[in-house]
Amino acid sequence: MSTDFPHVEAPDADARAAARARQGRLTKPAGSLGRLEELGVWVAACQGQCPPVPFTRPRVVVFAGDHGVAAHGVSAYPSEVTGQMVANFVAGGAAVNVLAGVAGATVRVVDLSVDSDGAGLPPQVTAHKVRRSSGSIDREDALTEDEARAALAAGRAIADDEVDSGADLLVAGDMGIGNTTPSAVLVAALTGAEPVAVVGRGTGVDDQGWMRKAVAVRDALRRARRVSGDPLALLRTTAGADIAAMAGFLAQAAVRKTPVVLDGVVSGAAALVAEELAPGASAWWVAGHRSVEPAHTLALEQLDLEPLLEMGFRLGEGSGAVAALPLVLMATRVLAEMATFEGAGVSERAADGEQAAAEATG
Amino acid sequence: MSTDFPHVEAPDADARAAARARQGRLTKPAGSLGRLEELGVWVAACQGQCPPVPFTRPRVVVFAGDHGVAAHGVSAYPSEVTGQMVANFVAGGAAVNVLAGVAGATVRVVDLSVDSDGAGLPPQVTAHKVRRSSGSIDREDALTEDEARAALAAGRAIADDEVDSGADLLVAGDMGIGNTTPSAVLVAALTGAEPVAVVGRGTGVDDQGWMRKAVAVRDALRRARRVSGDPLALLRTTAGADIAAMAGFLAQAAVRKTPVVLDGVVSGAAALVAEELAPGASAWWVAGHRSVEPAHTLALEQLDLEPLLEMGFRLGEGSGAVAALPLVLMATRVLAEMATFEGAGVSERAADGEQAAAEATG
Repeated sequence: MSTDFPHVEAPDADARAAARARQGRLTKPAGSLGRLEELGVWVAACQGQCPPVPFTRPRVVVFAGDHGVAAHGVSAYPSEVTGQMVANFVAGGAAVNVLAGVAGATVRVVDLSVDSDGAGLPPQVTAHKVRRSSGSIDREDALTEDEARAALAAGRAIADDEVDSGADLLVAGDMGIGNTTPSAVLVAALTGAEPVAVVGRGTGVDDQGWMRKAVAVRDALRRARRVSGDPLALLRTTAGADIAAMAGFLAQAAVRKTPVVLDGVVSGAAALVAEELAPGASAWWVAGHRSVEPAHTLALEQLDLEPLLEMGFRLGEGSGAVAALPLVLMATRVLAEMATFEGAGVSERAADGEQAAAEATG
Repeated sequence: MSTDFPHVEAPDADARAAARARQGRLTKPAGSLGRLEELGVWVAACQGQCPPVPFTRPRVVVFAGDHGVAAHGVSAYPSEVTGQMVANFVAGGAAVNVLAGVAGATVRVVDLSVDSDGAGLPPQVTAHKVRRSSGSIDREDALTEDEARAALAAGRAIADDEVDSGADLLVAGDMGIGNTTPSAVLVAALTGAEPVAVVGRGTGVDDQGWMRKAVAVRDALRRARRVSGDPLALLRTTAGADIAAMAGFLAQAAVRKTPVVLDGVVSGAAALVAEELAPGASAWWVAGHRSVEPAHTLALEQLDLEPLLEMGFRLGEGSGAVAALPLVLMATRVLAEMATFEGAGVSERAADGEQAAAEATG
């Protein structure tokens, strides 16, 4: 299996220009919807058409996997929760299910490396399983080279499958006890940050737990830095199958010219690797929110993405991205459905400077 | 007509406590949804029940009116736009219509003081009309005392009408060329701010226009400050019928124990007056967004409200509140519909400190 991704095309410049111009003809002062206007312009550029068409199949894919490092006291929850939560996603009881219901999105969960035999799960959940758990990255590689390639290929196949099935807006979510540790290491390896700068308080860790996590990150980072110029080797040593698959998914979504709303620190870490695998992919992504994990902010800065929401989320699952989905849907429909000044018979802004004063329509 | 509002009850403390406890039993680390969790708790307290029930009839009421001060070069648009936009709301072509469509809300527009005869509008739009335009507040009162009382009563009647018709979540939007000038004056009068601190660049005013607006605000504020301790007199001198009605609407929504999502500087100014009219009303409001108008931030600080969104909106119409509506719906449904640890068979956080480490479920 090759890790070479095809060239990523840039979103369409003509559609972007047309969308910018159209914002000025809609019945509102140009620019008065702030970032929502730029978001609509981005959607038009991604779709290559103006006005853009409203999204019909927003889709969340949750990448689930366990992490050996969780056995070393870096998580407040036991690893068995990962498998239990996979069942909870399938049953529709998790946060991301509820949020997606409001946003009009559907949720798919994929078990890449959960430490369970997958008994009782629908076969499509486990069809891409690479292994049970991933290695404890502070002392061993997360994956073998074959496993890293398999995980990456699984992510690409899942993106192809979703796009071929009509998904027109994607979210990559995560589920895995311990998964912010490899994410923090990946972010540090790709941004040059020190361990202490990427280790967060997570769910509210005490000082002792924070120190355990910082030690694990430091040790894993020592191993990761040796290969930080080689994305496949970085996934092998540091990521785990779930995060490797997510990186492949994010890169392939860009190859398939399908916009993505990113979530928190795990998708941020996977996105940094995906941008290495498929340069230019980040033009197809928007940041749904800023998580409280410090490594997430470093990842967003490196990706040059400004989050839509800052709600203090630290859950994962894609929850922060899905919370922002309605804004993306709104931005799209504003461009697609609002009346124009001409069409609605509304007078435009006065041309002469005497009237070009302070206030708008509201 | 009396301006005495009945006592505003506080949202239910027992439901609030039950909701806080319930957040800890849902299948996510407690607190991991950040502000969304506190938002859900607020909804439960407003509804007086835990879990809260999902909202079935979110409703936007747009208060439309013209302002005499617009003739003096404080707005980039001519006053005729207000009436044209009222027709645009009725036809469903304005930004707030499109945003509400995504959020599952419906929009009602009420002409309180548009400078038109209302020909061609549905009778229910003009049923509460107080007058054509309001006085130019830099040199005369906006309203007579009777008109101020009538506008306030109209807002109360509209709130009663909406709640009686089943609206369970309200947004007050605004439409009126020139309406940020009275809003800025109201905010300055009630927060003690200087004119320069409340005058914004609006839709992108040039230096000359900004100075014209600052002069108008300074002159109007001189008149407003004489009566800033008397909310009815403040509405009479400074508000205009649209903003006075909105203040009555916001106060009465609280009397009727119906939660409200506030919009930008106009609803912020009306809210400041409403809190004077009906102390405690602000406990029933959440701030949808922070507008770019500086007076809005002053109003939010005085009301002790932290906005959900910061998207750089400066449109009005209720747009910023409606953009935040999905977050309120999500917060409610998380509490109402997520599985509990016990119900889903998911292990809870390990009790002993050794495991109480950094990471969460995602």
